[in-house]
Amino acid sequence: MAKIVVKFGGTSVGSVEKIISVAKILKKKFLKGDKIIAVVSAMAGKTNELIKHSEQISKNFNKRELDVLLASGEQVTSALLAGALNNLGIKSKSFMGWQIPILTSGEHNNSRIINMNIDKVNNFLTNKGIAIIPGFQGISEQGDITTIGRGGSDATAVAIAKIFKTDFCEIYTDVEGVYSTDPRYFPKAKKINKISYEEMLEMSSLGAKVMQSSAVQTAMIYDLPLHVRSTFSNKEGTKIFGPESIDYNKVITGVTYSKDDAKVTLLDVQDKPGVAADIFEPLGKNSINVDMVIQNISPDGKKTDLTFTLKRNDLNKAIKLIKSNKKKVKYKSISSDKKVSKVSIVGAGMITTPGVTYKMFRSLAQEKINILAISTSEIKISVIINEKQTNKAVKKLHSVFNLD
Amino acid sequence: MAKIVVKFGGTSVGSVEKIISVAKILKKKFLKGDKIIAVVSAMAGKTNELIKHSEQISKNFNKRELDVLLASGEQVTSALLAGALNNLGIKSKSFMGWQIPILTSGEHNNSRIINMNIDKVNNFLTNKGIAIIPGFQGISEQGDITTIGRGGSDATAVAIAKIFKTDFCEIYTDVEGVYSTDPRYFPKAKKINKISYEEMLEMSSLGAKVMQSSAVQTAMIYDLPLHVRSTFSNKEGTKIFGPESIDYNKVITGVTYSKDDAKVTLLDVQDKPGVAADIFEPLGKNSINVDMVIQNISPDGKKTDLTFTLKRNDLNKAIKLIKSNKKKVKYKSISSDKKVSKVSIVGAGMITTPGVTYKMFRSLAQEKINILAISTSEIKISVIINEKQTNKAVKKLHSVFNLD
Repeated sequence: MAKIVVKFGGTSVGSVEKIISVAKILKKKFLKGDKIIAVVSAMAGKTNELIKHSEQISKNFNKRELDVLLASGEQVTSALLAGALNNLGIKSKSFMGWQIPILTSGEHNNSRIINMNIDKVNNFLTNKGIAIIPGFQGISEQGDITTIGRGGSDATAVAIAKIFKTDFCEIYTDVEGVYSTDPRYFPKAKKINKISYEEMLEMSSLGAKVMQSSAVQTAMIYDLPLHVRSTFSNKEGTKIFGPESIDYNKVITGVTYSKDDAKVTLLDVQDKPGVAADIFEPLGKNSINVDMVIQNISPDGKKTDLTFTLKRNDLNKAIKLIKSNKKKVKYKSISSDKKVSKVSIVGAGMITTPGVTYKMFRSLAQEKINILAISTSEIKISVIINEKQTNKAVKKLHSVFNLD
Repeated sequence: MAKIVVKFGGTSVGSVEKIISVAKILKKKFLKGDKIIAVVSAMAGKTNELIKHSEQISKNFNKRELDVLLASGEQVTSALLAGALNNLGIKSKSFMGWQIPILTSGEHNNSRIINMNIDKVNNFLTNKGIAIIPGFQGISEQGDITTIGRGGSDATAVAIAKIFKTDFCEIYTDVEGVYSTDPRYFPKAKKINKISYEEMLEMSSLGAKVMQSSAVQTAMIYDLPLHVRSTFSNKEGTKIFGPESIDYNKVITGVTYSKDDAKVTLLDVQDKPGVAADIFEPLGKNSINVDMVIQNISPDGKKTDLTFTLKRNDLNKAIKLIKSNKKKVKYKSISSDKKVSKVSIVGAGMITTPGVTYKMFRSLAQEKINILAISTSEIKISVIINEKQTNKAVKKLHSVFNLD
């Protein structure tokens, strides 16, 4: 008998039929004796539909009212799921963010959960009911409806698991777990049974969009076990634990990639202290995140070439900002490349295994893949390459590091 | 400068474009200096869609959760309208039922508004904002979301007008007001400029579905002036006041009809005290409303024929109940007619004008329309006729009583 949080994403509750299936999954768990809090997303497509409505009025729709608007999506799913459970003979009740309440702070559309009252929901669990809580929403200290950003239902589930001190948190989604690479395009991809929080973070921020990163981070801080699994099969999914779950025999856990990067090169930049700061300050102030930075020292110590990567969406804005900053930053020319991708290998095992970097670069060279930029962390190596060569690179690395 | 409640029905807010139009109507009023509380329905079709979802799960969907589900409809409209006003440069905020709060009592799906707090909203009005309140919803003393029955947004608007002591309440809808008969089928129908609450009640309960009856009743009790008008034109609509607005020169205000009635006749019922009660008791206990009852006294005082009318939907159930009650109620045969309609003339003027009944019956006879049953009140006369003759009857009465 455990106390658990179970979260169902948008595709898992994407139709009334699917909501009924979810109710059946919950009933089965309940009859095993578990105390269950279910967190639900809006039905797939619903949030986008509501956002579209708001954009028909204004691209700059009032932020407070946008939260009121979007929160309705999870309200609908919660009520339907609670109703479906009651219809199966299981006591169930929906608890809106304001009813619990789930207190948030910060800006509208991007709030953080800071606390919640546990009494009402705990009483209901004790009285043998399944509590249904809409993800993504809360209320501010002023009593306004707030939301915590796209994908925020994961964050709600983890916050609830933490505050209600549950044994673990299951994330039901439309895939069977976390894979060694994207299974939609690489048939040799394998499901990962266990992964550490750190690896998962590197995996999810790099493109394996199974779980929202900040939710994984919160789970890591509170050492809360997660289990990512499919709503549409009975198979075990991927368990995400602390470092004790790391399999150090396996050097690499997965190969990820993203195709929304771009590269910018500034030639003959004046090489003096503070020049990098001068280049990147206006980007940062305009919410443009720079990913990798490579700077070659010039032979004469006076000029340097500087390359950096960023999200493709931000490219035009970034170039405009740099050009308009020409008074402060002197350079000969600026060039950019939209057709690049980032390929990464992730694995806690590389900490204790020398030669991983070398092996990666050698493998790519064998495939005649030119590396345009490199960035490394303790458990991840990323390279920027020509976008056309992405598939070849992923296949090669997946095979070389024994993931096939 | 007035303080007003303005209510917009489902078709008035049936699309984002229409919501933007409503925002423009409100802005115009606001710039004239009015203090405005706007009450909104769910977008046309939305409530039915949500009900359909719930029925896919169960025809007997959990009532508490049905309220959570349905309340989301008005929440969406409120947020979109408040956002649209902000976009037009007018300060506006949505206030959910639980935020005000609007306190209700009674059962889920059919609660009554018993009170509401006026401070938050009044402060906002004083600070030059337009307050948007979702119709149809409130919260119970237990803090659960409640709804007040279909068409309940009218009731919300009137309750708000009463509790906030506004000068009047405007009901914006998809027709230009209340008509002397149904303008969709009778081109000679005329818009009524002024009508008394009592007449409006007779009109609306008989088929002129412009406003919810219980809302008119509440307005009558508190002597709150209503103005029913179109969202899609600038024309004045129909003003609904107390008896002072009755035009006694006009004998008849309108001709209404309904086509969802049925007639049941029991032949040779044993004529003894209590027999009518024995017949109707099982119907009442099964929530079947009987409308008109006609009983002919038999020549020998031992047998009687009894005819009554009821809603067509209830006919089969009613016949079954009567037949299964044969031990208590003796009769020779039972017959029924589904193809009947009810045609009524309504007018406060008939109180002071003799001969209206006679004139009505004579006119129908001239058209060879047989009257199957009659029922009268102070300001209304209704007859049951063959359904096929409905149009002929309405046209004749509309003309005879000078409404063309």
